[in-house]
Amino acid sequence: MTYCVGMMLDHGLVMMSDTRTNSGVDNISSFRKMFHWSVPGERLITVMTAGNLATTQSVISSLEERNKAPSDRHNSLLEAPTMFQVATIVGDLLRQTIQSRAVQGGQNAGNTFGASMIVAGQIKGMEPRLFLIYPEGNFIEASYDTPFFQIGETKYGRPILIRGYERDMSFESAVKLLMVSFDSTVKANLSVGLPLDLLVVERDHFEPLHERRIDGKDRYFQTISAGWGEALKKAFLSLPNYEIEPTPTHAIVS
Amino acid sequence: MTYCVGMMLDHGLVMMSDTRTNSGVDNISSFRKMFHWSVPGERLITVMTAGNLATTQSVISSLEERNKAPSDRHNSLLEAPTMFQVATIVGDLLRQTIQSRAVQGGQNAGNTFGASMIVAGQIKGMEPRLFLIYPEGNFIEASYDTPFFQIGETKYGRPILIRGYERDMSFESAVKLLMVSFDSTVKANLSVGLPLDLLVVERDHFEPLHERRIDGKDRYFQTISAGWGEALKKAFLSLPNYEIEPTPTHAIVS
Repeated sequence: MTYCVGMMLDHGLVMMSDTRTNSGVDNISSFRKMFHWSVPGERLITVMTAGNLATTQSVISSLEERNKAPSDRHNSLLEAPTMFQVATIVGDLLRQTIQSRAVQGGQNAGNTFGASMIVAGQIKGMEPRLFLIYPEGNFIEASYDTPFFQIGETKYGRPILIRGYERDMSFESAVKLLMVSFDSTVKANLSVGLPLDLLVVERDHFEPLHERRIDGKDRYFQTISAGWGEALKKAFLSLPNYEIEPTPTHAIVS
Repeated sequence: MTYCVGMMLDHGLVMMSDTRTNSGVDNISSFRKMFHWSVPGERLITVMTAGNLATTQSVISSLEERNKAPSDRHNSLLEAPTMFQVATIVGDLLRQTIQSRAVQGGQNAGNTFGASMIVAGQIKGMEPRLFLIYPEGNFIEASYDTPFFQIGETKYGRPILIRGYERDMSFESAVKLLMVSFDSTVKANLSVGLPLDLLVVERDHFEPLHERRIDGKDRYFQTISAGWGEALKKAFLSLPNYEIEPTPTHAIVS
């Protein structure tokens, strides 16, 4: 499993991904699931991946044309005129990769080789954009109503995102929100694990503002992880208790 | 979908279930998923159900022998000597029901007709016990380490349960915890919905201490739902913000 979140803010984009991959619970590794490419001053494009690792690695390699000699390589993401085109390229490549494996693997292999991706970035002269790419290759775009996307193990960390997100929040506050969301997920699901990759991209700046790998020894993550438990308890205690009135016996119907 | 939680406390048992059933998003109904039977002064047994509604209703009807004339009916749960036997009876009936449908329905029907259940209760002279019954008919029992079970849409509401639960908490506080967990789930998944059924059973009392149906107009639920959002925000604000140091350009590796 995996957990990645891509978030659109007024100030720009914030991305976070975990790095755990597993094939069964006794075959756990750490792989990067966040990638970015930039032409300084002109564009920055980032992709996060969830699902079958062979599929997602194959897509990333194809994007970079790693089957060619270094001198012959063109990254088509760096040449696409719009972010919509970028999403289309990634979506087509993802669908083709899954389909070619599925054909080789038989009828039920589609799910096995499935993957989904978050694509985000900005090209000079246009707005920053954020897409969620499905295994079928089609995609949806973040809007004012749905300003962030999650892929992978999305449920544990979703309630706090829904409640904490505000479009005009600062990067500092958004990273805190993501840390809380990831901490809840890591605590609940063994197949999502540290270290985390973090990327912050300021609007109209075509280079990462901030890029970090956050491991278990990270002081800030530890502060959030411990502090959130305490803060939640306090929040919980601040609410009034339920009042139990014993149910009169004659009202009991089984 | 469904959401049910059964919780073992030092003081007794607390159960909560939603009532929404759906077959597609345009075919939504409300059905009871919590059932209990008691012999006052001797035993109280409660069952909560998740999964295929035809399956779970069939199991409940079989337990009550509704295929017989009222005078001939015996509820075997009321005669089983131990809670372990009770869980075995429910598990066997569940497995048989699913299997018989699956045989009629063809190869892939097992999942379609699947269901799981939480069984809890106490028989005089023995401890209260809490079981999770799988579609295969086998079951696990709550222990000191895992003192509550969830079935259905379990993920959204799990982080707060993990962090808020304490074995020696009061019933009043436990109900509050369940309300928060259900509120998070209802907000995140359309297929879990109000009204909720609540049952509180005090240890060594073989009748419900408190039994309620909680609908959207319930003042306490409204207080929790609105209050929890506020309290979460405060909790979130109480944590320190992340500090962003711009990444030096030379350190950027794509």
